[in-house]
Amino acid sequence: MADTIFGKIIRGELPCHRVYEDDKVLAFLDIAPISRGHTLVIPKEPAVTLDKLSDESAAAIGRVLPRLCRAVLKATGATAYNLLENNGAAAHQAVFHVHFHIIPKYDDSGLGIGWKAQSLDNDAAKALVAQIANALS
Amino acid sequence: MADTIFGKIIRGELPCHRVYEDDKVLAFLDIAPISRGHTLVIPKEPAVTLDKLSDESAAAIGRVLPRLCRAVLKATGATAYNLLENNGAAAHQAVFHVHFHIIPKYDDSGLGIGWKAQSLDNDAAKALVAQIANALS
Repeated sequence: MADTIFGKIIRGELPCHRVYEDDKVLAFLDIAPISRGHTLVIPKEPAVTLDKLSDESAAAIGRVLPRLCRAVLKATGATAYNLLENNGAAAHQAVFHVHFHIIPKYDDSGLGIGWKAQSLDNDAAKALVAQIANALS
Repeated sequence: MADTIFGKIIRGELPCHRVYEDDKVLAFLDIAPISRGHTLVIPKEPAVTLDKLSDESAAAIGRVLPRLCRAVLKATGATAYNLLENNGAAAHQAVFHVHFHIIPKYDDSGLGIGWKAQSLDNDAAKALVAQIANALS
């Protein structure tokens, strides 16, 4: 993968407002926040999208997320928040290194969500489950 | 926490279109998908929001996410997708048991994202980092 600004941040070539770091994970404030406390959590392992990340790095991020979310809530006073991780330009990914957004939700700021629910056809669902199960095995 | 439909699914009291299960994690198709392949990944541990989930369950979900994302992409042919986890009714949470949405993005369906970026004031950022770091320690 091509180097990104997150690669430079990990290597200390660019500064960041760091809130957490361990051997596999780095967390820092988003410099273009959509709400107060908007925090990014990234693996040190370079991977463009979540499907390309190692199980070990993904587990390390998962393990620290509850603690980071608690800290962001405590520091901001927010009581609701979204966790969002975008994969691919079509899905709003802007930096091509995996990053999880922790986005506090306030009345006047945070993530806007467009949600057009459809119904799940039972036969189509069974066929899709079989395809996913096959892809997993 | 109050029991939810996901608690009933975990206990087998309600059916689901299951795509994956291990001792800590269950994944199944969303019955009101916003795109084809919309999949939910939940901890078996009952927790309302991510900040209340154990590190172990969060790590178990993190570990299996890359594999599940790969399978959903392979089964659907999607090349972009969003991972979303909502916490609190104000942040669009509808079932009060932690759940991660894997949402394939196609031209005509998927997650709509409202994003109004602000600028991060340097002094405010330093104060916030100190508050988050304090909350972490």
